[in-house]
Amino acid sequence: MGLRRIDAIAPSNRGLNYGDGVFETMRVHRGALPLWSRHLARLREGTDRLGIALPDVAFVEARIAAVIHGVDAGVLKLLLTRGDGGRGYAPPAEAPPVWMLALHPLPASTPAGLRLHACDTRLAAQPALAGIKHCNRLEQVLARAEAERAGCDEGLMCDAEGRVVSATSANLLVHRDGRWLTPPLERCGVAGVLRGWLLEHGLAETRDLSMSEVESADALALCNAVRGILPVSTLGARAWSPHSAITDLQARLAMAYPMFSESVEAA
Amino acid sequence: MGLRRIDAIAPSNRGLNYGDGVFETMRVHRGALPLWSRHLARLREGTDRLGIALPDVAFVEARIAAVIHGVDAGVLKLLLTRGDGGRGYAPPAEAPPVWMLALHPLPASTPAGLRLHACDTRLAAQPALAGIKHCNRLEQVLARAEAERAGCDEGLMCDAEGRVVSATSANLLVHRDGRWLTPPLERCGVAGVLRGWLLEHGLAETRDLSMSEVESADALALCNAVRGILPVSTLGARAWSPHSAITDLQARLAMAYPMFSESVEAA
Repeated sequence: MGLRRIDAIAPSNRGLNYGDGVFETMRVHRGALPLWSRHLARLREGTDRLGIALPDVAFVEARIAAVIHGVDAGVLKLLLTRGDGGRGYAPPAEAPPVWMLALHPLPASTPAGLRLHACDTRLAAQPALAGIKHCNRLEQVLARAEAERAGCDEGLMCDAEGRVVSATSANLLVHRDGRWLTPPLERCGVAGVLRGWLLEHGLAETRDLSMSEVESADALALCNAVRGILPVSTLGARAWSPHSAITDLQARLAMAYPMFSESVEAA
Repeated sequence: MGLRRIDAIAPSNRGLNYGDGVFETMRVHRGALPLWSRHLARLREGTDRLGIALPDVAFVEARIAAVIHGVDAGVLKLLLTRGDGGRGYAPPAEAPPVWMLALHPLPASTPAGLRLHACDTRLAAQPALAGIKHCNRLEQVLARAEAERAGCDEGLMCDAEGRVVSATSANLLVHRDGRWLTPPLERCGVAGVLRGWLLEHGLAETRDLSMSEVESADALALCNAVRGILPVSTLGARAWSPHSAITDLQARLAMAYPMFSESVEAA
């Protein structure tokens, strides 16, 4: 497949028309992407499941290296669409994928704890799309708008049966009975890269959780690959004080990935 | 809100990143859009429900008139995105929407009947998005790819409970006991403009339908605003002969909208 640099997104780009693509949002640290192999694994799963061609990985890595060279801290977004055209929804037979990189500053660090809003917008059960970071994100857009209207930092989303799933752009960590629990994501939600790391290292385990189980937790945190582990201070009327289980988890993460040590200090 | 003509889609366009937009695909006939008021009503419902600003309608109409002036037959696509940027999923507070028009040739007329494939990909139940023509269309993309692999013209999609909902880009009409039935769309699916016209005129009624009820129907047809009413000839192993109920319905439609009379002749 030939490579071609494009100067603009075509009006017929399938990402634009149908959200027909996948993306990764990655923490840049000292000119590198420490979690790249995990992001790449999820990207590969997404393209496999959606039948989108993955661009030559070595070439993408070379472009990434050029873009983040000399960048001490930041966020790199990789957006990969199925390309242009096709007859309506039918994927084009041979169109090359279209991908782009965008470098952003690191978001400002948040105060001691996040204020969470329990959103009315539900996550629909769709096993064909669950787990991957695809570009059909209207549910998250609607839920995040709810959180903003409520004056909160993030929104907590449930599935249609009332099981808690995740925040709009972070996975949920619920501390109960001395363990960190996180909802399974086979029906909906995005399988976060940091959540995957925590599960693999036995620092969290998956379990279905109701809203009342979340509300009665000893501690609550969110995690994502850009901001690490962030303590939650409120969910509606419920408030949590700082908890050693969160600082312990942050310290474990910072040992493996020092870029996240700042959030430990902030907490 | 100021209007500004843009030369290219920005990488931060929310349609591209999140499928954060709505669209209409409309039949052009002798320099006009005979179904425009219905398309506009659905567009307005979509922008209302998603909280996207609707551009000045008179201005959009003037641009449409300029684009389709002198065009005898074709398809006009209007794509409207929430605009650029915002902090992640959070909708930007004041960003103007970005919209575009694209004129395409009328699709080639299909043979006597469409071959339908029963897709494995399900439509997830999401009342917040059901009915409107938003840009989160990965389910349709996956289903349409299934239909292509099966060598069929279109794919028939069910919800997670096995109720039949629609084709990937057309609504379903099922003839049973002398009546035209079409599935309700409160949980998922797109409320087609032509389906709305049929319901309003008492030519069809909504009813939940199982796959076996569809398979045992006396006649099957698809409808959309570009191609009118199209007879279905096969669904898997089941085959249907031409049926007078379909030609009757096509004739009724052609009386109101002569642009669809060609499909009557083709049938």
